[in-house]
Amino acid sequence: MDRAVPRSVEAVDEARQWGRLMELARIGAIPGDGVNRQALTALDREARRLLIGWAEAAGATVTVDAAANLWLRREGTDPGAAPVLTGSHMDSQPAGGRFDGIYGVVAGLEVLSALHQSGTVTRRPIEVVAWTNEEGSRFAPGCMGSMAWSGFRPVESFAGIADADGVRFGDALAEHLAAEADIPRRPLGFAPGAAPHAYIEAHIEQGPRLEAEGLEIGVVTGIQGSRWFEVTVSGDSAHAGTTPVSLRRDAVQDALRALNALNDAMHDPADVLRFTVGRIAVSPNSSNSVADMVRFSIDLRHPDAAVLGPRGDAIAGVVQAALRNCTATVAETFSAAPTEFDPGVVAAVEGAAAALECRHALMPSGAFHDAQFVSRVAPAGMVFVPSRAGISHNPAEYTAPAQLAAGTRVLAKALLDLAA
Amino acid sequence: MDRAVPRSVEAVDEARQWGRLMELARIGAIPGDGVNRQALTALDREARRLLIGWAEAAGATVTVDAAANLWLRREGTDPGAAPVLTGSHMDSQPAGGRFDGIYGVVAGLEVLSALHQSGTVTRRPIEVVAWTNEEGSRFAPGCMGSMAWSGFRPVESFAGIADADGVRFGDALAEHLAAEADIPRRPLGFAPGAAPHAYIEAHIEQGPRLEAEGLEIGVVTGIQGSRWFEVTVSGDSAHAGTTPVSLRRDAVQDALRALNALNDAMHDPADVLRFTVGRIAVSPNSSNSVADMVRFSIDLRHPDAAVLGPRGDAIAGVVQAALRNCTATVAETFSAAPTEFDPGVVAAVEGAAAALECRHALMPSGAFHDAQFVSRVAPAGMVFVPSRAGISHNPAEYTAPAQLAAGTRVLAKALLDLAA
Repeated sequence: MDRAVPRSVEAVDEARQWGRLMELARIGAIPGDGVNRQALTALDREARRLLIGWAEAAGATVTVDAAANLWLRREGTDPGAAPVLTGSHMDSQPAGGRFDGIYGVVAGLEVLSALHQSGTVTRRPIEVVAWTNEEGSRFAPGCMGSMAWSGFRPVESFAGIADADGVRFGDALAEHLAAEADIPRRPLGFAPGAAPHAYIEAHIEQGPRLEAEGLEIGVVTGIQGSRWFEVTVSGDSAHAGTTPVSLRRDAVQDALRALNALNDAMHDPADVLRFTVGRIAVSPNSSNSVADMVRFSIDLRHPDAAVLGPRGDAIAGVVQAALRNCTATVAETFSAAPTEFDPGVVAAVEGAAAALECRHALMPSGAFHDAQFVSRVAPAGMVFVPSRAGISHNPAEYTAPAQLAAGTRVLAKALLDLAA
Repeated sequence: MDRAVPRSVEAVDEARQWGRLMELARIGAIPGDGVNRQALTALDREARRLLIGWAEAAGATVTVDAAANLWLRREGTDPGAAPVLTGSHMDSQPAGGRFDGIYGVVAGLEVLSALHQSGTVTRRPIEVVAWTNEEGSRFAPGCMGSMAWSGFRPVESFAGIADADGVRFGDALAEHLAAEADIPRRPLGFAPGAAPHAYIEAHIEQGPRLEAEGLEIGVVTGIQGSRWFEVTVSGDSAHAGTTPVSLRRDAVQDALRALNALNDAMHDPADVLRFTVGRIAVSPNSSNSVADMVRFSIDLRHPDAAVLGPRGDAIAGVVQAALRNCTATVAETFSAAPTEFDPGVVAAVEGAAAALECRHALMPSGAFHDAQFVSRVAPAGMVFVPSRAGISHNPAEYTAPAQLAAGTRVLAKALLDLAA
C-alpha cells in the first residue's frame, strides 16, 4: 500500500479476522460449513462471550442495553463528541452461513484491534454494536434490536411474540439479560440531541452482482422495502377416508388456491419484486386427517415504495377472493419502507474505496439490514463484500479471506475519516 | 327385549360402557372434548392399565405380544377350540375424538363383563384385542399391530420408523414392553392351522350415512383400499430479498405445481376417490429464506382396486412432470388393497342386528381398520354405529350412549352365535 493509507488501516489483519470468523462459526456449526445460531440462545451467548474477550483485549469497554444489543466502545479524544458506529448482528438463519451478520461485527472489532495495535487516536469515540435478533427466524420480525434502539418500536412490544417452541421473546430476553448481568448496562437508544455522528454496517452482499462484475466493494446507497404477512386459512379437520372431497373444508386445498392466486397477483415480468413463501405450518398435520388450519408467511420486497405499497395492500383481497370453503385472516407482521442512505456516509465509503484502490460500485441492497432502522435516526451507510454465486441464508455462503479483509480496510478508512 | 334375546346380551350395560369411555377419554384429553393419545406413549400405557383393571374384574386373563397388542381372554368350555376375536385400537389422532378405536375395545370388554355378570358360558374362548398403533399418526403407517399379528409385515420391519421427535418405533416398542414386563407374554400371531374362528370389530362409522338414513347399525361388507405416498421436493435455499424469482429453485413453488397437477389428475366427478394431502413440512421453514425442501403426504383411497391401482401408480409421473426447477422423489409408504369381509361373519352380524330389531344396512367402510389385516388370515367383519354429522378425527366426534350400547348388543349377539 502507498503511504496515503493510514497505519491503522494497514494494521487490519486478514488472518486474524478470518481466524475469529472461523472460531465463531464453530458455535452452532451445522453440516456443510453452515451455522444455526438463533437469537438469545445459549449458542448466541457463547458467541458473544468470545467476542467480548477479543474486544477487551483490544482495549474496548463492553456494555449491553435493555434490548440485549451488545456494545464495544473505544474512546476518542473528545469525550463529548457523538460517536461513530459500526456493527451488524450475530444471529443466523436456521440453515445459515458463516458470514451473514457476524462479518459486520467481526469487521468492526478488527477495526478496533487495528486502531489499538497501531496506537491510533480518533477524535470521536468508535462503537461496535451487535444488534439483537436481526434474522427474525426465531422471533419474527427481524431487526428487533435496531428497531428498539432507534425508537421505531418499543422493546416491550415484542414481549409476547413466541418462537416455534412457544417461548416468548420477553422471557428469552429476560433470561439472556440475567445471563449477562455481569456486563455493565447502558441505556437503550440515546439522549435527545445526542444521536450518533454516523453508522456504517459491513455485510456480505447476499447477491451475485459484485462477483459477476469483478468488483471488490459495494458502496450501498439504500435498501429495498420489505413487508411481511402471515396468512391463516381455517377449515375443518375430518377423516381422510370417509369424508367426500366435495364436503370438505380442507385448509390445505384453500391455502393452495390462495397461493396460486398470490403467485398470479405478485408476478413481475421485470423480476424486481421479490415474493417468497418460506414458512408453512399445517394442523393437525396428519397424513390421514383433512387439515383444519394452514398458516403461511409472505415476504414481499421492492425498492420502490410506489410498487411495494399497492402490491402489499392487495394481498388480503387476493387471498379472500381465492378461498372456496374456508375462512382466512391476513396479518401484516413487519413493514419497512425503502431506505435511502445518507449522502455523506455514502461519500465516505466511496471515498475510502477509492483511496484504497478497490474496484467498487454504487448499488442498492436487496436484503434488509439493521442499517435500515439506524438510518431513521442517524446518518447511515453500508459496505458490501462479494458473496460467492450470490448464495446466502445457506451453509454454502462464502466470501474469501482477502475479500473480507478488503471490506474491513474500506470500513476502517471510512470510520477514521468520519471520526476525525 | 323379548325372550329371544340372551340374558348375556341383556346384561350389556349402557351406563357402564359410557362411564368407561368417558373415564378413558380423560387420558390425553384436549380442548373441545377431544383426545390426543398417541401409540406407545405414557398416556397409551395409562389407558391400557385402566382397561386391564376392568378386564381382570370381569374374570379375563391379560397377555401382551411382541407387537404390544394387548389381549383379554375369557375361556370357553372347549379348551382346544379356536377363539372368537373382537377388538380395535386405543391410540388416537393428534386432534382426535373419544370414540374412534377405543369404542371397539370397550365394547369387547363390555361383552366380557356382560358374559361374566350373566354367568354365560360359551364353547369357544372369546378374546378382546387392542391393536398397537392403528392411527399411524405418531409412527406411519398405521395398523402396525394387526399387520404384524397377521404376518403381513414383520414387526422388526417397523423398527427404524421415527416419530416427529426422532424417536424410533423399535425403541418406543422396547420401552413400552419393558413398562409392561409384569404382564404375561403371548406369542405374536398364531400357530399354523390355529387361526381364530372369527373376528368382529365394532367401530364408529366416521361418515354420515347411518345418521342420514336413520339407521342404528352398519353391517360392514368390506373396506376400501388405501395407498399412502410421501413426496419430497428438493431445491436450494436462498435469501428471499436478494435472489431474483427467476433464478430460484424454490421447493415451495415446485410443490405447489405438483399439488396442482395432482389435484387435476386425482379429480373424480363421482366423488368416490378420496385424495388427501394432510401433512406438509418445509425446510428451513423460515419466512425470509427460499425453501430447499418440501415434503408432503398423500392419502388415496377407493373401494375398487381397478381404480385405486392406476390412480396411485400415476402419482409419481404426475409429480415429476409438474416440476420446473426442483427434483422430487415419491415413495409409497403404505398400501392396502380393497377388502371384502367373510360372508359368514357378515351374516352373523346381520343376523344379530335383525334378531335385536335394530335398523341396519349393509355398507362398505370408508376408513381402514385393523379388520382389514385380520381378514387376510381369519374370517372377519365389522359393526358400525352412527357418527354425528359424520365427523371423526376431530374432537367433535360423537355417538350417543344408547347408540353405542345398541352396537355392543349386536356385537355380543354375533360373538355368542359364533362362539357357540
